[in-house]
Amino acid sequence: MSQTPASPTAASASMATATTALARVAESLARQGMMQHLGTRLVSVGEGEVTLAMPYSDRVTQQQGGYHGGAIGALADIAGGYAGLSVAPEGMEVTTVEFKINFLNACQGGELHATGRVIKAGKRTMVTSAEVTHVADDGRCTPCAVMQQTLMAVPKTY
Amino acid sequence: MSQTPASPTAASASMATATTALARVAESLARQGMMQHLGTRLVSVGEGEVTLAMPYSDRVTQQQGGYHGGAIGALADIAGGYAGLSVAPEGMEVTTVEFKINFLNACQGGELHATGRVIKAGKRTMVTSAEVTHVADDGRCTPCAVMQQTLMAVPKTY
Amino acid sequence: MSQTPASPTAASASMATATTALARVAESLARQGMMQHLGTRLVSVGEGEVTLAMPYSDRVTQQQGGYHGGAIGALADIAGGYAGLSVAPEGMEVTTVEFKINFLNACQGGELHATGRVIKAGKRTMVTSAEVTHVADDGRCTPCAVMQQTLMAVPKTY
Amino acid sequence: MSQTPASPTAASASMATATTALARVAESLARQGMMQHLGTRLVSVGEGEVTLAMPYSDRVTQQQGGYHGGAIGALADIAGGYAGLSVAPEGMEVTTVEFKINFLNACQGGELHATGRVIKAGKRTMVTSAEVTHVADDGRCTPCAVMQQTLMAVPKTY
Repeated sequence: MSQTPASPTAASASMATATTALARVAESLARQGMMQHLGTRLVSVGEGEVTLAMPYSDRVTQQQGGYHGGAIGALADIAGGYAGLSVAPEGMEVTTVEFKINFLNACQGGELHATGRVIKAGKRTMVTSAEVTHVADDGRCTPCAVMQQTLMAVPKTY
Repeated sequence: MSQTPASPTAASASMATATTALARVAESLARQGMMQHLGTRLVSVGEGEVTLAMPYSDRVTQQQGGYHGGAIGALADIAGGYAGLSVAPEGMEVTTVEFKINFLNACQGGELHATGRVIKAGKRTMVTSAEVTHVADDGRCTPCAVMQQTLMAVPKTY
Repeated sequence: MSQTPASPTAASASMATATTALARVAESLARQGMMQHLGTRLVSVGEGEVTLAMPYSDRVTQQQGGYHGGAIGALADIAGGYAGLSVAPEGMEVTTVEFKINFLNACQGGELHATGRVIKAGKRTMVTSAEVTHVADDGRCTPCAVMQQTLMAVPKTY
Repeated sequence: MSQTPASPTAASASMATATTALARVAESLARQGMMQHLGTRLVSVGEGEVTLAMPYSDRVTQQQGGYHGGAIGALADIAGGYAGLSVAPEGMEVTTVEFKINFLNACQGGELHATGRVIKAGKRTMVTSAEVTHVADDGRCTPCAVMQQTLMAVPKTY
């Protein structure tokens, strides 16, 4: 994205694509009851890279008061999924075939940021990764989890 | 569990163990803000095998109205984790090192049942699996997801 | 497979299918340079379930003289893959999208047996599992590894 | 490694550490019958980052003549494992708890390069990743696989 566009036309096309990716992800996120309920919000959408944030609340805790592995997994899942959606063919959305997540540190308070990235956008399946970072109220960041995921494009039905 | 106990004492010991496992899991589940929020309830607790249920609501949906992969993953995570907790040494609880989940069928309505089972209870790590099944309002069951997980025992701090 | 066939015709059809699955798996295995090199052999082929064996040798060891995780992973990979091949549409073979394996016990000597099973045979992807067991020279069995895998059907090109 | 060392002593200490890491990895690799057999060699060893190469031969092929998923998995497994070994406490080595690998492109000829990196070196478990790249005879590189792995430190017994 740091390259000088070859022409005004190319610049417009690129901006149009970015706008489309943002619109697609925002529309999908607004429809996810679970993510609305957990207060998840979009931080940034690029082509093949999406960042989301989830605030701490008693809706995302486990038995010790830390973020629940299931909440961390859910956030990582959609970060990877939306990275895939941002580059999926028009008229398609993506569904998760599988994901695998490693937890790195227990975290509490503040919020979680998850960045999903497309590793390979194949015709039949996509491979993505996600990094989840805890951002404390004082701004200090701690690695929280890493995920590796397989997606599949499916026709959009809504 | 189908064996005839060798003596009344053995039977009492076994019942005591089962009661303890149930109490441990129930106490932990009641403390999980996320799971309380999603309406998750215990269905059964055996030694090394635990079943949980999660009802359908707009708190667990994705963009098409089906169960969110993140909700399915969260349920599978605790089913495996509680199977591990049911056999963990006294004074210890378990934390998830990592899990991997494959989604088998999209599901909507009714509720999800997840059964976690201990595959190997090692001294330092445990391996578990979980099967998630969708139970429709008319009782029809559909496989929803399978998970494979690594746990670690940690001292209980509450 | 324990049902009484409804008619001689059904019995023949079932036998023909089983023969075809065996032929497909055996043909593929014979073409795998790596598996020939490691001395891997077919133990049994059913519809959706295949068992393979790999003998101990210095071709499969790690630094302590035990079976190498890479050898165990390779055996589990083809056990799952061949379970998928046994039910793949005619003219297709399968390729591994991804797999995840947990190691349960270190093993040495004897041989490894891996049984792959189809969990879900979808149109676009298949999900399988594999269990790897160590069989010592005296016949004693020890769980060695468990695997969960995603496959994709691709046209057979040879 | 690009920083100017604060003093000759710090520089010596850093060189000594690097030498030790190289010696540890080289000694372990030389003892792995499987990897010797497949012709695997060390390319580079840094603290927490190790690269290995595996040449194409009929010892690593699948049924279509490409690299076997099992060979790719084995190479990724040791790349991650040796990255962990390079930072493990003295007197310890590492064992693989589990790994998960996604295959990106089928490859043939040339050789495979795998780079393992430590993501988190915990006291009880480590998390690593590995990227496997195909390097064709003409030098062209193609992404082959990505892996995410959990390791455990164990006492070195040889």
